[in-house]
Order: sequence, then structure tokens, then C-alpha cells
Amino acid sequence: MDATKLEGSAVTKLIASIVTVGEELLIGQVLDTNAAYLAAELTRLGVPVMRSLTVGDDKEAIRGALDEGMRHGRLTLLTGGLGPTPDDVSREAAAALIGSHLRVDTTVLAAIKRRFALFGRDVPAGSERVASVPDGFEVLSNSKGTAPGLWYQGENGSIVVLLPGVPHEMKAIFSEHVIPRIRALSGRTAIAQRTLQTAGIGETEVQRKVEAVSHLLDPDIIVAYLPRLHGVRIRLTVTGKEASNRLDAAERHVRAKLGAAVYGCDNDTLEGALGGLLKRRSLTVAVAESCTGGLVLHKLTNVAGASSYVAGGVVAYSNMVKQYQLSVDSRVLKQFGAVSEPVAIQMAEGVRARLGSDLGLSVTGIAGPSGGTEEKPVGTVWIGYADDHDTRAIKHQFGRDRQRNKDKSAIAALNFMRQILLQS
Amino acid sequence: MDATKLEGSAVTKLIASIVTVGEELLIGQVLDTNAAYLAAELTRLGVPVMRSLTVGDDKEAIRGALDEGMRHGRLTLLTGGLGPTPDDVSREAAAALIGSHLRVDTTVLAAIKRRFALFGRDVPAGSERVASVPDGFEVLSNSKGTAPGLWYQGENGSIVVLLPGVPHEMKAIFSEHVIPRIRALSGRTAIAQRTLQTAGIGETEVQRKVEAVSHLLDPDIIVAYLPRLHGVRIRLTVTGKEASNRLDAAERHVRAKLGAAVYGCDNDTLEGALGGLLKRRSLTVAVAESCTGGLVLHKLTNVAGASSYVAGGVVAYSNMVKQYQLSVDSRVLKQFGAVSEPVAIQMAEGVRARLGSDLGLSVTGIAGPSGGTEEKPVGTVWIGYADDHDTRAIKHQFGRDRQRNKDKSAIAALNFMRQILLQS
Repeated sequence: MDATKLEGSAVTKLIASIVTVGEELLIGQVLDTNAAYLAAELTRLGVPVMRSLTVGDDKEAIRGALDEGMRHGRLTLLTGGLGPTPDDVSREAAAALIGSHLRVDTTVLAAIKRRFALFGRDVPAGSERVASVPDGFEVLSNSKGTAPGLWYQGENGSIVVLLPGVPHEMKAIFSEHVIPRIRALSGRTAIAQRTLQTAGIGETEVQRKVEAVSHLLDPDIIVAYLPRLHGVRIRLTVTGKEASNRLDAAERHVRAKLGAAVYGCDNDTLEGALGGLLKRRSLTVAVAESCTGGLVLHKLTNVAGASSYVAGGVVAYSNMVKQYQLSVDSRVLKQFGAVSEPVAIQMAEGVRARLGSDLGLSVTGIAGPSGGTEEKPVGTVWIGYADDHDTRAIKHQFGRDRQRNKDKSAIAALNFMRQILLQS
Repeated sequence: MDATKLEGSAVTKLIASIVTVGEELLIGQVLDTNAAYLAAELTRLGVPVMRSLTVGDDKEAIRGALDEGMRHGRLTLLTGGLGPTPDDVSREAAAALIGSHLRVDTTVLAAIKRRFALFGRDVPAGSERVASVPDGFEVLSNSKGTAPGLWYQGENGSIVVLLPGVPHEMKAIFSEHVIPRIRALSGRTAIAQRTLQTAGIGETEVQRKVEAVSHLLDPDIIVAYLPRLHGVRIRLTVTGKEASNRLDAAERHVRAKLGAAVYGCDNDTLEGALGGLLKRRSLTVAVAESCTGGLVLHKLTNVAGASSYVAGGVVAYSNMVKQYQLSVDSRVLKQFGAVSEPVAIQMAEGVRARLGSDLGLSVTGIAGPSGGTEEKPVGTVWIGYADDHDTRAIKHQFGRDRQRNKDKSAIAALNFMRQILLQS
């Protein structure tokens, strides 16, 4: 959207800009979690965020940032620069922005004094700064700290909100004061979203399959594809009435087309989905890991309650451990090599037998950076599966990065077992 | 600093602006780690970052953001919007910015085709988009993926750099191509920093000890304490001549005071430090894990070359596995419980004996959220150690969060073994 085109409608449309203030952000010392929090909350409230700008502790830079924000949308939210030190100049910048002056708010100052008295501490220097309010701004009380939030609404409807940078104070003021005011202003139905999680399928194929059912979807639903290492996410967005039912319908169509590639929604994890399957069927699993070095077990045991279906496992980094702890046949090791289909299967069978679990899962591969050969380059991985009447194995060829190979192999192993359980 | 004041000097001073592109940032779905990475790297190079702006996948918004960046400093770095889908419009925005046109770069396209051929995959739709370059931009090759970086230097000296949004690709192009070019441009004395990594010691104690030697340190050295889950980092910063020698001297004083609590510098990891000790002494290790569920082994095997000193290990989630795979005495289990000093020691001895390693390490504890008792609440963890003539154990009491308990236990276990090796 062109900024200049927006200017006319900016004051009527509830569109937001975020400004975060702090040198610690501009030197990359901390991640800007405040911007992400406000962006997520505003999105949930149905207020689109147009931009998010970070500037340092400089009065003119902050004034300029607020000014830009006001030109891009009706609502400008700032965090940071409201503390007691001379570096904290967001109040001064806001006063300059609207051409007003700072005055000490005696109610705020009294509240600060009470707060310190309550903790038996002296009122610190700088408290008068913290209690200073630009004329034209309203005070939003801070239930978690000293610096209040500040709210300005101009004659043309433009709104500027200043919030302290300390995350839990900012969140308290935002939740208690800003959300109710935004709801009152917008009156619009919030945006609803649902994210379907997939594994074992590439972005292009996901997109092709979803597009094949797009004629069945509610035409107002916006579909976005978000690839990441763990699998492609499909985000469905809808605005308006009956959002939940419409998302349900869309989800059904997408799932019908993608089948077992979809393992869950929103915050579901692959290990949680597999854990759920194992738990419902009262099955236990043991894992034999070579190249993943414990990562499959680590992921499985990240799920609370995993002890009811994870027996444990063996990390077999050396061939000796594969032979003696997993009963892998030394002749098979010699003939096919440690990274091979028969060894993967023997590892899965071996760990299942040794640990007395219902199912066995194994991973053997070359994580890199060294250890590859022409026939089996770095990134070659075999995954094995065993239950009481069946064994299976699958080969993957990943890349050259050790960490990514471990991650991808672990995900592939969890997904392999999940797919087998879904078919059986 | 006033933006308008800067305009005159912007093209001569090497001041940077960051632009990150992506709807996922504006809806708060992901944290903007790219902006933080670039900010930290530019700061390290001595290039001040004036602002960091996030906009959505919109050509005009991106063009406007680049334009603002150019008005605020000589160097504008953008990440994101260089993928293969029609949503990826950073190239179009950059072309519009300098009034040029996109053309398919046949060298880039050929590299993309080779990359997919190497992995035996079809060249995906959208590859021509990825290979499109705005006239006037130079190609910066991408060693980790398909979309190249793009570099523009205008007649007035203004520089615009476009980088893909996938973090490891962005970092690779930045390190390989952008850093050398920025160094060549700046020629200024960079800020030098060194970060000492500690484990097993709290922030207050670190601070107290460093302050006790502060009179010995170069007065121009700025010390900062950066706590995180894995341990407190001590960052030393110095500007000017002989930075390296001055940092060496400061590091010596701090290390002399903190002793074995310091395990390394900058990008060193605890598992890497332990691995180095094991390798130098030609010792092998095996690990028996209960509550950490494979995380200790996962960390140990994240280090390239770990196969020379990690034999492997056993994840013993059930008491049966502790008894049968680790030879833990069932009477000891019954009398003291699985989370106890004697069981921790027997697990370390058992895994050492079973896997034939020089050293054994074990973790047994209650990760939570359930499983705690009054006597052994969630967060109780025993760590055990065994070698050919000695056994040891240590108890920790962590909190109630499962993930954090796993993390803290794994770190404590690695550090326990490291401290023992340093003493012996």
C-alpha cells in the first residue's frame, strides 16, 4: 500500500504503526519482543499493522518516528523511553510532536511515592520525570510499575499511545487500558486465523494441492504458505461473522486433500501428534539413534506425559555400541555399512527387543561435516521402524549442514512413525 | 538525531538502516531475529544503526522503506521478499526505487538449476523470479540456497543491499560478501568486543568477582553482564588502538578471578569446551539420561567430530530400562527411588560399563509438570559421574517448567563433568 495514498483515509481507518525505542535494540543486544507482542495483539483485535519502526533514545528520531506513524495509520503505539533517566526522552518527543509542554502530574507522582513507601524504599531520583505528562495526553495507570502509559487522541482522530518498555508493565497497561479502548473504537469483527501444520511435504506440493481445492473454499478466506525447517504451515485467515465455522469448513477441505501430511493445528507439534497416537493406542516406543545423537528422544520427551509411552532408547554413535547394545550383526555392518537399510532395520528391531517396547524407531546417517563418501554423501540418512510383525525403512538425502541434518532427520523419523501408525 | 539534519552527511557517513520485510513479522507470528542479527553485526563493525523498519509484502511499502532508509544513512540493508512466489516483491520494489528494470540473470538461473539437479529434484516454478536482478544491482552469490543477495551502489555513494529472509542464507551472504565490502568502505577503527562465557555461577557472584578486579582493568573497557539460561556472559568492549591486546589483558584478569567458571569466549559452547577436554585427553564418554531424555547426548553430538569421544548412551525413561540396560540394582531403586544419589551413580557406572567408555555421566530427575512429591518436588535432579577409580554425584533443585528443567539439567551435567576433568 502506498503511504501517500493512505494519508487521506488513515485517520478514519483503524490501521496501526508500532514504534519501539531503545539503543539496546539498535545494537542487536535484545530481540524486539515488544513489537512482536503488540503486532500479535493488534492482529487478534482486527487492527492491521502497517509498519514497525525501531529508533534509538533520541528525541528528534522519536518525534520523527511518531510523525511517520501518524501519517501511515490512525493508531501509533510506542514502547520505551519512559524511564527515569535523562536518556528516556519519549515524553519530550511526544510533547514536541503535538506542540505541547510537559507538566508533573501530581496524582502520578503521589502514586509513585506510595509504591516505594509500600516496599519501604526511598523515592528515587528521576521520579518527577516519570510523573511528567505532555499536555493533551491522558494517563493510563501502570499496575505493575511506576511509569504510566499515555494516550493522545487528536482532533482528526489520530491516536498516539506511549507505553513503558519493560515487557510485563507494557503488557499490563496494554491489556487493562488499551485493548478496551481499541475495541470501543473499532467495533469490527476480529480477524480469525488457523494454521495447519504439515510435515514431509514440500511447499510447492502443498500449494498445488491446496489450489486444487481452492474452488471449494470460502472465497473470503486468505491462504498463506509459511515454510520452515519443520514443515510447511498453511495459514487460513478470515474476517467477519461465523469465522470459526468458516475456518472449520476450510480446514476440512484442506485436510481431505492433504491427508496425513497435516499433523495438527496452530501450536500442535509433530512429537505431540505422534505422542497422542501412541497414547491412544497404548503403545510404547524405543528409539535407536546414530546421527541424530539423542535429538529424536529429546523431542519425544519434550511432551509432558511422554513417560507413559516412551520406554527410552540407545544412542549408538560407534559401531561397537550398535553391535553390543542393539544386536546389529557385525557381518551386516561390514557388508552394507552403518548407514544402510539393513542396519537401520536391525537397530529398530534391536532397541525394541532390548527395551521391551511395542515399537522400535531408528536413525542412522552421516550428519557431517565429514564422514561422507561418493556413494553415501554427507546428509544420507536411513530411518528404520519395527513392530511385532513388520519392519520398514526409508532413505533421505539431506544437505551438508550438521545441525540441519540432525533436525531434518529427527523430524523425518517422527513423521515416518506417525505415517505408519495412521496407515495401520 | 534529526533525519533532516542527516540528509547532507548521510552519503558520506557510514550509518545504516535496516528494513525487514514480511507479513509474518507484522502479525507478530515470528520474532525479527534478522534485524537483531544485522544490528549486532553492524555494531561490531563500527557502523551505527539509525533505525530498523519492518513492512509487509507490499511493493510500494518496501520501496518507501528503502527510500526512507537511504535518506537516513549511506547503507540500507533489507531482508526478505526475495523468494519464488508472487508475494515476494522486494526485487520489484528495488527496481522501482532506482528506476530500473528486472532481467533474468542467466548465471544465477544456471546456478539454481545446478543446485536442484544436485539434489535430483525438478527446478521449481518461480525460479526465474528468484534469478531476476534489477539493472544496476550486483549479484552476491548464496552458498546456502537459491536466492542471491543484491548490492547497489549509487553515484552519490548510497548503498542498498537486499538479502533473503531465510536466516542461515542471509547470514551466509552477509558474512561472505557484505562484511568484506563494509570493512573496505569504512576503514575506521572498529569497536572490538569479547564475550567470556561462564556456567554454574549466578549473575550477582559474577558481577561481584569481576568488580573485585576492576581496578586492574583498562579503564576504557566497558564490562556488561548478560545473563541467560545457559550461564552469564561477560562482554568486554573497547574502542581504539591495540584493542586485541587490551582485551587479552582484561580477559586474563577476569579469568584469573573466575577460574573454571569461565568455559570459553565468544561463540564457544559448553559442549564444545567439554569435547575439547575429552579429545585432548583421549577419553571417551557415555551418557545415561532419564529426565533430560536425550538432550545431553544431543548437545554433545552437536559438536562436529564428537564421534571421536562420544561412544553413545542410553535414555532410560522407565525403571525397567534403568535396571536391565544400566544394571541399576532393583533394591537400590526401591529403597532410594529413581531420583537419588545412589541411582545416579549406578547409572553412570552402568552406562560406562555397558558401552565400554572411559567415563560415564548420568542425569536422573523430575522434569515435571507432574511426578513431584513433597520430599522430591518437580525440578529435583541428581547428576552422576564415574571413571575407572572414582564416582561422584551432585544434586540440583530447579524450577517447575519442564523445558527449562531439561535445559538446565543438561547444562549442569556437562558442566559437572567439565569441572571434574579440570580438577583431575
